[in-house]
Amino acid sequence: MKILVTGFDPFGGDKINPAIEAVKRLPAEINGAEIIKLEIPTVFNKSAEVVKKAIEKEKPDYVLNVGQAGGRFGLTPERVAININDGRIPDNEGYQPLGEPIHEDGETAYFTQLPIKAEAKAIRDAGLPASVSNTAGTYVCNHIMYQVQYMRDKEFPNIKAGFIHIPFLPEQVVNRPNTPSMALGDIVKGLTAALSAIVERDGKGDIKSVEGANH
Amino acid sequence: MKILVTGFDPFGGDKINPAIEAVKRLPAEINGAEIIKLEIPTVFNKSAEVVKKAIEKEKPDYVLNVGQAGGRFGLTPERVAININDGRIPDNEGYQPLGEPIHEDGETAYFTQLPIKAEAKAIRDAGLPASVSNTAGTYVCNHIMYQVQYMRDKEFPNIKAGFIHIPFLPEQVVNRPNTPSMALGDIVKGLTAALSAIVERDGKGDIKSVEGANH
Amino acid sequence: MKILVTGFDPFGGDKINPAIEAVKRLPAEINGAEIIKLEIPTVFNKSAEVVKKAIEKEKPDYVLNVGQAGGRFGLTPERVAININDGRIPDNEGYQPLGEPIHEDGETAYFTQLPIKAEAKAIRDAGLPASVSNTAGTYVCNHIMYQVQYMRDKEFPNIKAGFIHIPFLPEQVVNRPNTPSMALGDIVKGLTAALSAIVERDGKGDIKSVEGANH
Amino acid sequence: MKILVTGFDPFGGDKINPAIEAVKRLPAEINGAEIIKLEIPTVFNKSAEVVKKAIEKEKPDYVLNVGQAGGRFGLTPERVAININDGRIPDNEGYQPLGEPIHEDGETAYFTQLPIKAEAKAIRDAGLPASVSNTAGTYVCNHIMYQVQYMRDKEFPNIKAGFIHIPFLPEQVVNRPNTPSMALGDIVKGLTAALSAIVERDGKGDIKSVEGANH
Repeated sequence: MKILVTGFDPFGGDKINPAIEAVKRLPAEINGAEIIKLEIPTVFNKSAEVVKKAIEKEKPDYVLNVGQAGGRFGLTPERVAININDGRIPDNEGYQPLGEPIHEDGETAYFTQLPIKAEAKAIRDAGLPASVSNTAGTYVCNHIMYQVQYMRDKEFPNIKAGFIHIPFLPEQVVNRPNTPSMALGDIVKGLTAALSAIVERDGKGDIKSVEGANH
Repeated sequence: MKILVTGFDPFGGDKINPAIEAVKRLPAEINGAEIIKLEIPTVFNKSAEVVKKAIEKEKPDYVLNVGQAGGRFGLTPERVAININDGRIPDNEGYQPLGEPIHEDGETAYFTQLPIKAEAKAIRDAGLPASVSNTAGTYVCNHIMYQVQYMRDKEFPNIKAGFIHIPFLPEQVVNRPNTPSMALGDIVKGLTAALSAIVERDGKGDIKSVEGANH
Repeated sequence: MKILVTGFDPFGGDKINPAIEAVKRLPAEINGAEIIKLEIPTVFNKSAEVVKKAIEKEKPDYVLNVGQAGGRFGLTPERVAININDGRIPDNEGYQPLGEPIHEDGETAYFTQLPIKAEAKAIRDAGLPASVSNTAGTYVCNHIMYQVQYMRDKEFPNIKAGFIHIPFLPEQVVNRPNTPSMALGDIVKGLTAALSAIVERDGKGDIKSVEGANH
Repeated sequence: MKILVTGFDPFGGDKINPAIEAVKRLPAEINGAEIIKLEIPTVFNKSAEVVKKAIEKEKPDYVLNVGQAGGRFGLTPERVAININDGRIPDNEGYQPLGEPIHEDGETAYFTQLPIKAEAKAIRDAGLPASVSNTAGTYVCNHIMYQVQYMRDKEFPNIKAGFIHIPFLPEQVVNRPNTPSMALGDIVKGLTAALSAIVERDGKGDIKSVEGANH
């Protein structure tokens, strides 16, 4: 089994992005699956082109995109990607869409094929906070999650794909009072646990457990 | 113009639900539109049946469902409803689905037809905190938002519909340390501002402004 | 019985200070006690001079200073004032001390004579969030609380004095995401409940209840 | 130079206390100073007896007590200890005082002799969040900080003493949603930076910088 794991480059004034830093430090093999690592730009559309090329070249069974969610307390596997680009800030090439569909002919949303409840449980079992998230936002993180699902819908029907958001690193919150963070080593440990759960649940679907949100 | 506004009854151990309390206190007319008020049960499916009967009887132009989002700081118009029932707690009849679709033949998600950016701006212009939300959760709030969209999709194509989440009341946070709240009068004022914006934007679509979320 | 209640003017970029707004709206009499209202400047030392003149003129039995604590969720009676001026920002006349004693011949700290646990309970009984606070900060709020205690220590031994911090108003958090607030009417209601408790406990000391903090 | 560093044992239902875990992992020497490590019980008075015996035996130049502050985002050197025992929960021997002085003949409060601003800066320079705190609470943490100051006042005038509060470990927040944490290795790194700053500022007093709090 082959899993393509991507991480974004820094954006929004930060000089480091824990996503690509953590992805770089993943082991080459997790639970028997080969891990292919890829850095992608925090840029609408271009990020998708980079992922698409890697899918064509590597032919992975799974794609996991990883992105920073500054302000979240734990690792959060994402349930759904929605068909909207609505930037709070411009992307790394200065483009800031304000409420446009990603693809006119795409679904309003796509659910991930990944076992998000099993991932969250595996991360917690590794001693780290985690919960299922029901929004990946409306910026480049949601964008890439949607784009990979759109590719799956139109071109690569055998791929299973999803997204995990991760917190800031401690060094990123030194001047951001009352903002949570997680050590890089722990993010790597949490992602490894999630990837291991993805392999373990292959062909079995997700576990059935309480991970819902009142709102 | 006629707007059906619904509010849920209390759930999850609370003796009061700010949603129905605020809806009850709305004026009978806002910006020239007639406001029809309806209490609905915090129960999967049954809530939808109650709304459906009211739609058949009242034939509203708009439907706005209002629900409590304990822990949120301001009023949050919702962008999207997703096709999942995944309860963190049981509903008021003891039913707790764990990850099932609401309708097998429904879309994965529906975007609201309401001008959510104009609503958020109108609430802030009234001196109250507000922002666009990209998740209504996976409980009865998301459920009713989805159900009304599904009805629109299948039966009532002329209706425009959406959802607003509102914070706890102060009395609900007396024993919940470090939890935000909003006075009932302010919630009513904020909902009135949002409804006025809905009327004002009728036929014009939403405004274009920065309301996106990084994650 | 006579109670002098003070509120600060706006500072730190805000155009309104809920402290003086709430104090202005207090009734002239609470639980049989006469309420004397006084606006004071958010300025080190000068604020104390203004209070001192009012004490000399009005000869109150109690002094309650009220100040804004942006970011707190409820009303918080303060337990203790400490002998330090350490400004995060300059005061309204541009003075920013960085760690100097208020009075070389003052105690390191003074405890309030007010029944803080009874005040917190009375506010909660009125349906509003409240808790005892163990720090009034190191800016003008702690300064005035300390200064009145110092006056009591040196000149006015019969006065009982203390401080209550109050949250932002909703209009102050419109552009401060994820920041709690409280309606002005509720702040007035909470302060009235606290003042009523002060009168009720006169001569009896504080109640004995669980209001401590682990840290 | 010799520094006695203490850490509490677990309390309040937790099976681990990051304070003693971090203290145990400190190096034996920091910036030329010998580090003496001591576990103390989360028990009023008894904790002080244990520290006193160690002071008598080791004759340290400095005493630094370390305690867990669940819910804080960074490491927080404490400015002041106050003369009150007011437990939110009972201590590890079941004793829960509700507002009693620690010592009838003690000062209302004692300021630390440690360079708290230099400590906070050193921790941030090490890439970890830190700020000066103005309250150590009213439980055993404040108690031990006060007790050591009282010993200094009455018996050991040459000792300089203080306290640092540290966050939860990640494993402690797995079932505490939206609660910040810090990796054990980072806590050790932060304490080491603070201790190094204490040695570096020996005889020079604290630095002058903006570390105050509005409230």
